Amino acid sequence: MDDRATLEARLAAAVGPAHVLTADGDTEPYLTDWRGRFHGRARAVVRPASTEEVAAVVRACAATATPLVAQGGNTGHCGGATPDASGDAVVLALGRMNRVRAVDRANATLTVEAGMTLAAVQQAARDAGLFFPLSLAAEGSCCIGGNISTNAGGTAVLRYGNTRELVLGLEVVLADGSVWNGLRGLRKDNTGYDLKQLFIGAEGTLGIVTAAVLKLFAPARSRCTAFAAVVDVDHAVHLLHALKQTLGDRLVGFELMSRLTVELSRKHLPSLPDPLPGHPWYALIEANDSAADSAVGALTEAALAAALEDGIVADAAVARSEQQAADLWTLRENVAEAQKREGPNIKHDISLPVSAVPAYLAAAADRLAAALPGVRFVTFGHLGDGNLHYNLSGPEDVAAETFMRQAPLANRIVHDLVAAHGGSISAEHGIGQLKRGELARYKDPLEIELMWRVKRALDPQGILNPGKVLPEPPQR
Amino acid sequence: MDDRATLEARLAAAVGPAHVLTADGDTEPYLTDWRGRFHGRARAVVRPASTEEVAAVVRACAATATPLVAQGGNTGHCGGATPDASGDAVVLALGRMNRVRAVDRANATLTVEAGMTLAAVQQAARDAGLFFPLSLAAEGSCCIGGNISTNAGGTAVLRYGNTRELVLGLEVVLADGSVWNGLRGLRKDNTGYDLKQLFIGAEGTLGIVTAAVLKLFAPARSRCTAFAAVVDVDHAVHLLHALKQTLGDRLVGFELMSRLTVELSRKHLPSLPDPLPGHPWYALIEANDSAADSAVGALTEAALAAALEDGIVADAAVARSEQQAADLWTLRENVAEAQKREGPNIKHDISLPVSAVPAYLAAAADRLAAALPGVRFVTFGHLGDGNLHYNLSGPEDVAAETFMRQAPLANRIVHDLVAAHGGSISAEHGIGQLKRGELARYKDPLEIELMWRVKRALDPQGILNPGKVLPEPPQR
Repeated sequence: MDDRATLEARLAAAVGPAHVLTADGDTEPYLTDWRGRFHGRARAVVRPASTEEVAAVVRACAATATPLVAQGGNTGHCGGATPDASGDAVVLALGRMNRVRAVDRANATLTVEAGMTLAAVQQAARDAGLFFPLSLAAEGSCCIGGNISTNAGGTAVLRYGNTRELVLGLEVVLADGSVWNGLRGLRKDNTGYDLKQLFIGAEGTLGIVTAAVLKLFAPARSRCTAFAAVVDVDHAVHLLHALKQTLGDRLVGFELMSRLTVELSRKHLPSLPDPLPGHPWYALIEANDSAADSAVGALTEAALAAALEDGIVADAAVARSEQQAADLWTLRENVAEAQKREGPNIKHDISLPVSAVPAYLAAAADRLAAALPGVRFVTFGHLGDGNLHYNLSGPEDVAAETFMRQAPLANRIVHDLVAAHGGSISAEHGIGQLKRGELARYKDPLEIELMWRVKRALDPQGILNPGKVLPEPPQR
Repeated sequence: MDDRATLEARLAAAVGPAHVLTADGDTEPYLTDWRGRFHGRARAVVRPASTEEVAAVVRACAATATPLVAQGGNTGHCGGATPDASGDAVVLALGRMNRVRAVDRANATLTVEAGMTLAAVQQAARDAGLFFPLSLAAEGSCCIGGNISTNAGGTAVLRYGNTRELVLGLEVVLADGSVWNGLRGLRKDNTGYDLKQLFIGAEGTLGIVTAAVLKLFAPARSRCTAFAAVVDVDHAVHLLHALKQTLGDRLVGFELMSRLTVELSRKHLPSLPDPLPGHPWYALIEANDSAADSAVGALTEAALAAALEDGIVADAAVARSEQQAADLWTLRENVAEAQKREGPNIKHDISLPVSAVPAYLAAAADRLAAALPGVRFVTFGHLGDGNLHYNLSGPEDVAAETFMRQAPLANRIVHDLVAAHGGSISAEHGIGQLKRGELARYKDPLEIELMWRVKRALDPQGILNPGKVLPEPPQR
């Protein structure tokens, strides 16, 4: 048997022949990313059902130096889970590893397998009378293993942190097929290097995450959603600070929206409200409380009233019903869909120190308006975390395709200014294949070298998701 | 010049001759740990005042393969900052690097140098109208660089996490003397591996932390301190769960104390109250709120009343004044001092899943009582984090020195049971030299191998704090 036949026999022995997919029709859904930007090929797609099966697959690949691409819900934004065009790789699709392994109410932890969808994890937490705070648009399809491997952000980072902060323990299959059992449910453990940190956010380049122990929290039992108008982004930053001082941990969401963003969202869903017409910028505010009859509504109103008096906000409205609260959030969450309907646009997922956001936006608007006449700024995002989805649409009278040709120029302006303001060119979506070139441009060569030292230490053959995340090694 | 003379000349050139200490009288304070358990020798103690000076010192040591031991306040519990007896090492004392580099209120961050004391960091946060939550007994002397390098825990982990969760960015001098500037103040940054995680908790074995960007929070403006009696530890775990459900993030402290611990604390400070005499176990509860006139007191009382009705607590008392609250905390915090006055005792710093604490304590009491007749259990700690200071005193009629000879036997029983219950033999104090042997015994060889791979990748010469944290490499 040649190597290829040997590998396929070993894969079939590892997971059962029915779970080794090689026919084009079977593998296709695994070879194109969700946004349809990356198309790859693969030697096979294998669907293991247990950690032991994953380990057997990795051993088979390690023995033949075959690249391995781990994939969960295939919903990533940067092509990190899509194989390259060579057709050399085996795709390890983890969707069959979807069990809850343990629920521990008294410890407020949940042990889950990597292939559970985020929505299923949230539900398992609710079933235990607790709450798992990670939440993002793809939650019905994305898998917790992918969330961990990309250190996903989402809408509750302001209070609960990124996925990294929500993980207490991991089980990881290493590049040689050995299994590291780090499934500890401990809030404090200082026994040597915290190895799980290596695998969180590494996009499958250092090991295959197969299970995790997650932190759970008390569910919110009362909430308040509000909308505030401000004259500029500087005032939005002041409002954020003022609300944090009063609401403390109750403040779970603080989303910035420009007037154009509100109009765009309503254009494509006209039933949505326009709560405070005639202002240039808005903040959508979400506060909640674990206590059922808490003062969170009264506190939020008082804080907004004080901000009005201090000239920090121009106007404010508090949702008076669940429906009003839901409509405000739909106004925000519909922006992505509205943009899609509006046609192609140039997207960015940037973060900055919150204090630097106003100066950044002013500088970027100046330079982009000069370089791309008529450009429209679709500026919105998680201002509470300094994370902006800073998207650019062309003028209404220019074909989107024409405008999109200017993407490289726009990216250069946006990312150069991000670097100059101490920010990040990928706040929550990761690097994958999409931003590898940008990373090479903006990352300190010393840091790239450190990343490679870690990579070589953990995956000396380089079989785990090659061509992702890490730029080419620097010459030093 | 021989190597030694060359090194000393380079050190003097790096930091100035006045800051290279070699006379016994000058170096002595740096060569013995705070508890007086470890005594080392050193070629020199150098006191750099800037990152550039640290880098020059490291380059000098790297060129001569000289071991380097970083030291902050020298208050560690495990001898991690004390050089070994060989006299080969250079001690890098960071106390002169004690500046605040930046305060960013709108971003709620503070950039500080490694040699600032924790108390000075807390004060700098207060001066900005914000709050840095890390707090522990040594805060007047310990340095933030040491807190970061040991991933310090302390009294507010339940709400704010360990030091790891409080660090947004680091500046680190690497083993070859190059400087990695990772001083980013970003809440979200997914641009490749999160390298700062490597250095947090590594006890100076992977790099020298010289500065950090820390997360700040809204200060508490109202609080409630309470004391509850429970019939056993299982009921204490139930109470913790019930309080978390109602108080949510307001619950910042939940400390377990046995009756013996209360009595011991009062024996050596008789002015302290005995709020609820005649119960076997107690919980000290601290709740607070960022809002000034919050319902935190009423909520805590209501939650305790419900727990009384449900049979979870046997009795409860809420502090009615700042003085009463302070006394309750002194009752808890005086335990360490009372134990010291009582004479030598066998200390442990263990953690467990909170749900496993009752079964663990029952099993440990059984085995220890059988092995060490008359042993007295001084059980207390941060139950909210599953972290117990599980200390053992001898019978009153046995000389402490006689009892202490049984320490190895006691450690074996305590740590074997910790391992069997999924716990950690070092919850918050780290490994240093003290627990290196225990780590070798309890850590999965695969994990030790991974630690060594990381160590070799970052410090190929092995000059950074050799003989600390990592057990001997496993033969595989």
